[in-house]
Amino acid sequence: MAKRYYTIFLLGTAGSGKTVLTRTLLDWFDQKKLDVAVLNLDAGVKRLPYNPDIDVRDIVNIDNLMDKLNLGPNGAMIASMDLIATKIDTIKDEIDYIEPEYLIVDTPGQIELFAYRSSGRLVSSVIAEHSQPTSVFLIDPSLALKPEGFSSVLLLSISVAFQLALPQIIAISKEDIIEKEQMENLEKWIDSPETLITDIHTSSQVSMSQQLGLSIVDILNQFKVTGDLFPISSNTGYNIDTLIALMERNWGQRDDFYE
Amino acid sequence: MAKRYYTIFLLGTAGSGKTVLTRTLLDWFDQKKLDVAVLNLDAGVKRLPYNPDIDVRDIVNIDNLMDKLNLGPNGAMIASMDLIATKIDTIKDEIDYIEPEYLIVDTPGQIELFAYRSSGRLVSSVIAEHSQPTSVFLIDPSLALKPEGFSSVLLLSISVAFQLALPQIIAISKEDIIEKEQMENLEKWIDSPETLITDIHTSSQVSMSQQLGLSIVDILNQFKVTGDLFPISSNTGYNIDTLIALMERNWGQRDDFYE
Repeated sequence: MAKRYYTIFLLGTAGSGKTVLTRTLLDWFDQKKLDVAVLNLDAGVKRLPYNPDIDVRDIVNIDNLMDKLNLGPNGAMIASMDLIATKIDTIKDEIDYIEPEYLIVDTPGQIELFAYRSSGRLVSSVIAEHSQPTSVFLIDPSLALKPEGFSSVLLLSISVAFQLALPQIIAISKEDIIEKEQMENLEKWIDSPETLITDIHTSSQVSMSQQLGLSIVDILNQFKVTGDLFPISSNTGYNIDTLIALMERNWGQRDDFYE
Repeated sequence: MAKRYYTIFLLGTAGSGKTVLTRTLLDWFDQKKLDVAVLNLDAGVKRLPYNPDIDVRDIVNIDNLMDKLNLGPNGAMIASMDLIATKIDTIKDEIDYIEPEYLIVDTPGQIELFAYRSSGRLVSSVIAEHSQPTSVFLIDPSLALKPEGFSSVLLLSISVAFQLALPQIIAISKEDIIEKEQMENLEKWIDSPETLITDIHTSSQVSMSQQLGLSIVDILNQFKVTGDLFPISSNTGYNIDTLIALMERNWGQRDDFYE
């Protein structure tokens, strides 16, 4: 029987900082002398700031796909995810060969490819099934400047959690570049979700029914209770220890840790 | 002053049927002898089943972008959206030159590119600003087989509505290929949102708090009241008249129709 491992899926929209966080987490585990491996699932990425132990670019050559099938970049990205799904056993075998204790999964640039296609969901479920999984959804602060933007990305993260059926921690990335005023707004919205709705009503072009507002406040209040929504920085290391502690809590929720 | 026009933004995940619906709507307007134009915003698409009046592929050559900037397909798609945003005045000039009464906007394959990047939001806001806009969010029925999948895509549609600040109608596409059992489930979930939550609790791996469940029921109940959630088929024309009627209702909500 293959040993179970702890998996961290890094999720978020393109540019939210998944790949940089992968590097930071890798360094963290290395410093603690823990046995960690990285799986890169982005077939379309050109450069990575780390050396992946398992890399789908060894399985799928996206330039060849475009040429052979006469596909545009969007079609090629979709075809590559579907092709990766057919090779999931190869990826699983590589993981079993390496036998890491911790596995960091850097997901494709566009979250849509991974979360909203059955091939992406198949890949995540096979990797998760043999491990103790958790996921981290990164919110790009540039999408959360306005109250409706913040609400929107929060709804997206919950939508993705439903698709992938993974425990989820939500982290606002790039804390080191968030302006003071924006940080105050984010803290206010997280601490007192009702203020988010008030701010949407005063600032926004979106006409939101009172009922929808209340539903969103309810959803935010639940994250407030669990403490699973906070800013981090991959560059300065801000709140990375908190992030790891929450991952450990999620891993501990299953007790069937060894098969 | 340029004449105001009625705009229809077609939104949805890759493969949800935006481009096919564009073709169906175009035929509908043509048959009524109404003055309609189509804008294609997908720089990466290879083939279209209609002739766009305005086409971003005339502005952005994505193959050149990949070569010149040594970008992967994902990077090229992002760069192309950013480039389109810098050319938004050219696109606006073309619309003003054509002076259509109705403008159908076929958005990029991946909704993420359009809704969760500031360049995409800029493009939509400039086009919307000079028109009476509405949007149609297409739910791919293959993502809505299970109750948690349906909840997920619904949350995604609300998330996108917040980002784009456009009135939104939600349509489940490809009604002609939905199996009888799935259709019965969809009808049940739309008519009685509480059943969706019961079904999630019995079928799913997702552990959803009762409170989150109630919030989702609240959100669904609001769509039920407005009637903005129903199946359509671009192939058979099923419910296309209903869709048009709801667009007209959204357009009528502003009375500043001519500048």
